[in-house]
Amino acid sequence: LSQDLISVTGSVGDGEVEMRGAKSIYMVSDGTGWTVEHSVNAALGQFDHCLVDRGCPVNTHLFSGIDDVERLMEIVKQAAKEGAMLVYTLADPSMAESAKQACNMWGIPSTDILGPITEAIASHLGVSPSGLPRGAPGRSFPLSEEYFRRIEAIEFTIKQDDGALPQNLYKADIVLTGVSRTGKTPLSIYLAQKGYKVANVPIVMGVELPKGLFEVDPEKVFGLTINPLVLQTIRKARARSLGFSEETRSNYSEMEYVREELEVAGRIFAQNPVWPVIEVTGKAIEETAAVVLRLYHDRKHRCTMPRISKRY
Amino acid sequence: LSQDLISVTGSVGDGEVEMRGAKSIYMVSDGTGWTVEHSVNAALGQFDHCLVDRGCPVNTHLFSGIDDVERLMEIVKQAAKEGAMLVYTLADPSMAESAKQACNMWGIPSTDILGPITEAIASHLGVSPSGLPRGAPGRSFPLSEEYFRRIEAIEFTIKQDDGALPQNLYKADIVLTGVSRTGKTPLSIYLAQKGYKVANVPIVMGVELPKGLFEVDPEKVFGLTINPLVLQTIRKARARSLGFSEETRSNYSEMEYVREELEVAGRIFAQNPVWPVIEVTGKAIEETAAVVLRLYHDRKHRCTMPRISKRY
Ligand SMILES: Nc1ncnc2c1ncn2[C@@H]1O[C@H](COP(=O)(O)O)[C@@H](O)[C@H]1O
Ligand SMILES: Nc1ncnc2c1ncn2[C@@H]1O[C@H](COP(=O)(O)O)[C@@H](O)[C@H]1O
Ligand SMILES: [Mg+2]
Ligand SMILES: [Mg+2]
Repeated sequence: LSQDLISVTGSVGDGEVEMRGAKSIYMVSDGTGWTVEHSVNAALGQFDHCLVDRGCPVNTHLFSGIDDVERLMEIVKQAAKEGAMLVYTLADPSMAESAKQACNMWGIPSTDILGPITEAIASHLGVSPSGLPRGAPGRSFPLSEEYFRRIEAIEFTIKQDDGALPQNLYKADIVLTGVSRTGKTPLSIYLAQKGYKVANVPIVMGVELPKGLFEVDPEKVFGLTINPLVLQTIRKARARSLGFSEETRSNYSEMEYVREELEVAGRIFAQNPVWPVIEVTGKAIEETAAVVLRLYHDRKHRCTMPRISKRY
Repeated sequence: LSQDLISVTGSVGDGEVEMRGAKSIYMVSDGTGWTVEHSVNAALGQFDHCLVDRGCPVNTHLFSGIDDVERLMEIVKQAAKEGAMLVYTLADPSMAESAKQACNMWGIPSTDILGPITEAIASHLGVSPSGLPRGAPGRSFPLSEEYFRRIEAIEFTIKQDDGALPQNLYKADIVLTGVSRTGKTPLSIYLAQKGYKVANVPIVMGVELPKGLFEVDPEKVFGLTINPLVLQTIRKARARSLGFSEETRSNYSEMEYVREELEVAGRIFAQNPVWPVIEVTGKAIEETAAVVLRLYHDRKHRCTMPRISKRY
């Protein structure tokens, strides 16, 4: 292997050296690369049973902003050397064609992520695609209402975190409540990125909840619950990382305390039967977000088939 | 059109009624639906020249958590009634096959987003896909190190927002600096979701910058800059939404003030030549994020071909 193949891994670049024997996936985009990364991630979920430490480690390499054929060809050649496959999103049809042909020539398996869906939409709409990558010269980025709304949602949500500014609960689109470490903060932020103003209110044994929580539209409040054993595991990890001394906050992750606090939460939820209660155990943040938004839109629109609709 | 076709739009559900004459895209997933939504979004970027108000409005409808064939068939039928196309991610090959056949039968155009990439990866790895949707019974969700790291990154980033806790700048992976409304906050949050601890430090004319900014590793600091006219537009919108009275903060969005503040920032950037300066004008948050991370990983690893590598 040549020197430049020894790249490093981990989304935060912890500096681990790439695993030898791992298969490589090259991901190429003329834009940010987030679409191809997202698709490859989802597909890799289908190989969970065999990735790292289970026999078939995979290294992914994301090349973004590739909008000229020279750099594209260098990447294809490098992929050939490394025995990698190539997955790409290239808006310019001649770039996509070059990628395909070069991969065929070098014997590299390749998959076009953008082309098939773009073609299908083109024939559905009866309109030709522009063929212009995002960020291409001449494309203007509109400071749309949606753009401002998303930024406002993020800023609102940050300010509201962890029960701050309870007087603003009425301004939130969605209010999350649950005991510590049910994932309220990351879930709030995930939803905020999608344009929803979110407030989260922690349930802490012995601490009174803000009155506002019971005054706002109960249809926008969501309770979060979790298995006590899993919660204890998460809290122990948390206590370690915060450096809680064993004495001061030992009850925070003690099983009896954990159970009791969850029971308190359960009673509050029972007293507010309109609030849906979402079980977060074993769910990734984006999975809980999907459940919240499904319920949110369903309640708002009450169509026969729950869906999230948008206009473009 | 039957009643349940009159669904509503807007990611925050503003209650606008769906546009008549708009073409529909049905998106179906056995999981969250974020992958299919992301792919369709990217592809719709290829039709910017003709969407709303330009002749071919599109309504998208996301159906998530569809893991039984009965609900799948209802959705396909509804798509047929509405003249929609169907785009899907279904991990179970028999579900994907059912979707395809039913669409063929009803004459609905359909595109499989997950299948092709999963098959390509399967033959590259020489391993069969599990065929199990995320969240399928029996699949366990690992409380992995990466999971905790992402949550920690989000919590760190929220606490550090807007120059708070400058004493913690050294703990950040990435430090962003720039004048107000260059998008530091949403960019920080976007990067935090990807697992990076981000701090952002506002540059405000007449306010001294924290010393820490000049003491941390300059390779992790990024300056943001923007066209003064665009910045003024954004600030005016901001001032309106915050309800600044014209007198108190009028200079905030006054052209002369805007220009001067950007010049102050420019001088600071010039004095710190190691900091890359990123032009955010006309860029979406995720585009700026891609630029930041490309530079970040490139500087960290100095490989011949800039890339972001991860291990699975
Ligand atoms: N708003 C947009 N306008 C045009 N093309 C886009 C847009 N968003 C994404 N794309 C294209 O879709 C693919 C995926 O984008 P990205 O996720 O930025 O890598 C790339 O080929 C982009 O050029
Ligand atoms: N971690 C995972 N394990 C198994 N399948 C997954 C995973 N993540 C996503 N998928 C599948 O990939 C497709 C897209 O997922 P989603 O973005 O949740 O709709 C769906 O068919 C999911 O079942
Ligand atoms: Mg929290
Ligand atoms: Mg800010």
